[in-house]
Amino acid sequence: MEQFNLENHPHRRYNPLTGEWVQVSPHRSKRPWQGQVEEVTESSRPRYDSKCFLCPGNTRANGIQNPDYQDTFSFVNDFSALLPEIPTGSKEEDSLFVAKSERGLCKVICFSPRHNLTIPEMDLASIKKVIDLWVKEYLELGSLDFINHVQIFENKGEMMGCSNPHPHGQIWAQESIPDNPKKKGKHLLKYFEKYKRSLLQDYVEKELLIKERILFENEHFVGLVPFWAIWPFEAMIISKRHITNILGLTENERTSLSDAYKRLTIMYDNLFGVSFPYSAGIHQSPTDGNEHPEWHIHMSFYPPLLRSATVKKFMVGYEMLASPQRDITPEAAARILKSLELGHYREKY
Amino acid sequence: MEQFNLENHPHRRYNPLTGEWVQVSPHRSKRPWQGQVEEVTESSRPRYDSKCFLCPGNTRANGIQNPDYQDTFSFVNDFSALLPEIPTGSKEEDSLFVAKSERGLCKVICFSPRHNLTIPEMDLASIKKVIDLWVKEYLELGSLDFINHVQIFENKGEMMGCSNPHPHGQIWAQESIPDNPKKKGKHLLKYFEKYKRSLLQDYVEKELLIKERILFENEHFVGLVPFWAIWPFEAMIISKRHITNILGLTENERTSLSDAYKRLTIMYDNLFGVSFPYSAGIHQSPTDGNEHPEWHIHMSFYPPLLRSATVKKFMVGYEMLASPQRDITPEAAARILKSLELGHYREKY
Ligand SMILES: O=P(O)(O)O[C@H]1O[C@H](CO)[C@@H](O)[C@H](O)[C@H]1O
Ligand SMILES: O=P(O)(O)O[C@H]1O[C@H](CO)[C@@H](O)[C@H](O)[C@H]1O
Repeated sequence: MEQFNLENHPHRRYNPLTGEWVQVSPHRSKRPWQGQVEEVTESSRPRYDSKCFLCPGNTRANGIQNPDYQDTFSFVNDFSALLPEIPTGSKEEDSLFVAKSERGLCKVICFSPRHNLTIPEMDLASIKKVIDLWVKEYLELGSLDFINHVQIFENKGEMMGCSNPHPHGQIWAQESIPDNPKKKGKHLLKYFEKYKRSLLQDYVEKELLIKERILFENEHFVGLVPFWAIWPFEAMIISKRHITNILGLTENERTSLSDAYKRLTIMYDNLFGVSFPYSAGIHQSPTDGNEHPEWHIHMSFYPPLLRSATVKKFMVGYEMLASPQRDITPEAAARILKSLELGHYREKY
Repeated sequence: MEQFNLENHPHRRYNPLTGEWVQVSPHRSKRPWQGQVEEVTESSRPRYDSKCFLCPGNTRANGIQNPDYQDTFSFVNDFSALLPEIPTGSKEEDSLFVAKSERGLCKVICFSPRHNLTIPEMDLASIKKVIDLWVKEYLELGSLDFINHVQIFENKGEMMGCSNPHPHGQIWAQESIPDNPKKKGKHLLKYFEKYKRSLLQDYVEKELLIKERILFENEHFVGLVPFWAIWPFEAMIISKRHITNILGLTENERTSLSDAYKRLTIMYDNLFGVSFPYSAGIHQSPTDGNEHPEWHIHMSFYPPLLRSATVKKFMVGYEMLASPQRDITPEAAARILKSLELGHYREKY
């Protein structure tokens, strides 16, 4: 019998950041698709839309008027899932019915005054302003004494539940450390205590030697499809240097991160020739007042598309009840992304 | 200030089965929706469709002909994600690149020869035949010595990535215990060792006293919205008696489970007057040869719809990066489901 190899045989891969496994079924990528096909609405949008809640000068649902902002703009979400001032308390009479009040703050971050841009189409200087704003918000929100975790993220595209195409992201800052970053923190700490090194720094250095999952690198950042990726074209942007959070980025590193953010999202758009939907976010050290030398800043990108602009991967059934599963291997995904032209498909330069 | 209460104030709830938390934002359910709206294709289907891979007598993609089955029918998935005969091996030179071959078997379970039925529209005797087949499969697959976990599940509806509307479910049986049931097993065991009782039996008994999350009960089963539900209308069907797996069900209990399965799915269909999409599955003891007295059989239902047949809850952004989040409380969801008429909306009896 042939020898076991990751390119051809069903296997599980371990995610050392979360301690979880993904089921990989490489032999299965040729399965026919008869299921739901998504609609692609690649309508060209105007620079300014008078009905958009996020465009400069417009009035939002709650009657507040946006300033005539020139680059970025942040404000408290009008429909915040988390609120700063609530009665606190908990319910714990019984180990089976446990609940705790949760304080927090939700903000919306407009990336650009222009309604019709997205990150891959913005210039580096404008993307850097988004990163500068993230730094400011992480610092301000993280300094509040009831905020121990600041989650910066972006939902892009209708397919990702994004209700407004104006380029924007969100921040949900809160009292508790949510389960996902908590899990990562635990595994990062275990590794750091054992090796006195950052898990992700070691990981990036090894990936740079192996090469096959690397999408690109610049002076300070690496874009790659992680060995343990769940989504078909999942990717990470990781700093080469061991930096625990966004406050540690130098000016040059912020520019490099802008470059990496743009390069990855151009690859995505070029993959199926469509503005590529995804959720992305930053994981970094909690703002609970401790040092957290184990943390290593990174961005994770979770795009749903599988084989075309209209066919996505459904994380349902087995995935919901048992474990995530993927068909195409992370190595094949990296190969495809790397083979694309570098310029954005809409510019064709 | 008002006192903290679960009906009005943002809080987190603990899931004692998985050890994870869900963020609940009850104040937020009135948020307007401007995002993606799903298509509803409530076309009436024929009893038999000559192009369907699952209808009796039809030929499947790989040339095999289905028998002229009268009630249920199971076969090995033509596009199995898991295979029984593969070269085994592992990759573990480094703690950051860990992978293991995974053997397994995937089966498709046709619920009925009739192309145009769904569980809520089938009669009890026919649903019981589905359960009988699950028992047979769990026993047969679980007896194979390389199978340690049997995941029985159903993806219903295009929105849940289901590529064929013919009523059917799946079984993925495999070597390892996947993360989700593994987590549940760990928490069930901890509770069992401490109290010498089944966590879920204690939970069901308490819910029956509290009443507000109970959807229905029959002689042997309870349908409820769990205190820690993630999806807007998530529900569980739990046996009142402490049964570790489907092999322990008496004939009467199988009939009761059919009744519970039908009652819950009728509620779902009636909620928005549409054939309600969901993923559902059974969690029960692994088939690894050990006793597992800690396990307690239950079915979990994860439906994506939020506020109408066309608006679903997106588990994206914050949910992918941080933690699941919900707006409507589990208690409110139970109240709504309980208030619906008992007969199926298409029958109006
Ligand atoms: O097996 P199917 O119905 O083709 O596929 C569906 O169920 C599988 C198991 O839950 C998922 O992995 C797929 O993403 C989904 O589309
Ligand atoms: O806040 P939005 O854009 O209205 O809503 C979107 O992002 C949120 C945070 O990831 C999710 O909870 C919602 O399900 C999603 O539709």
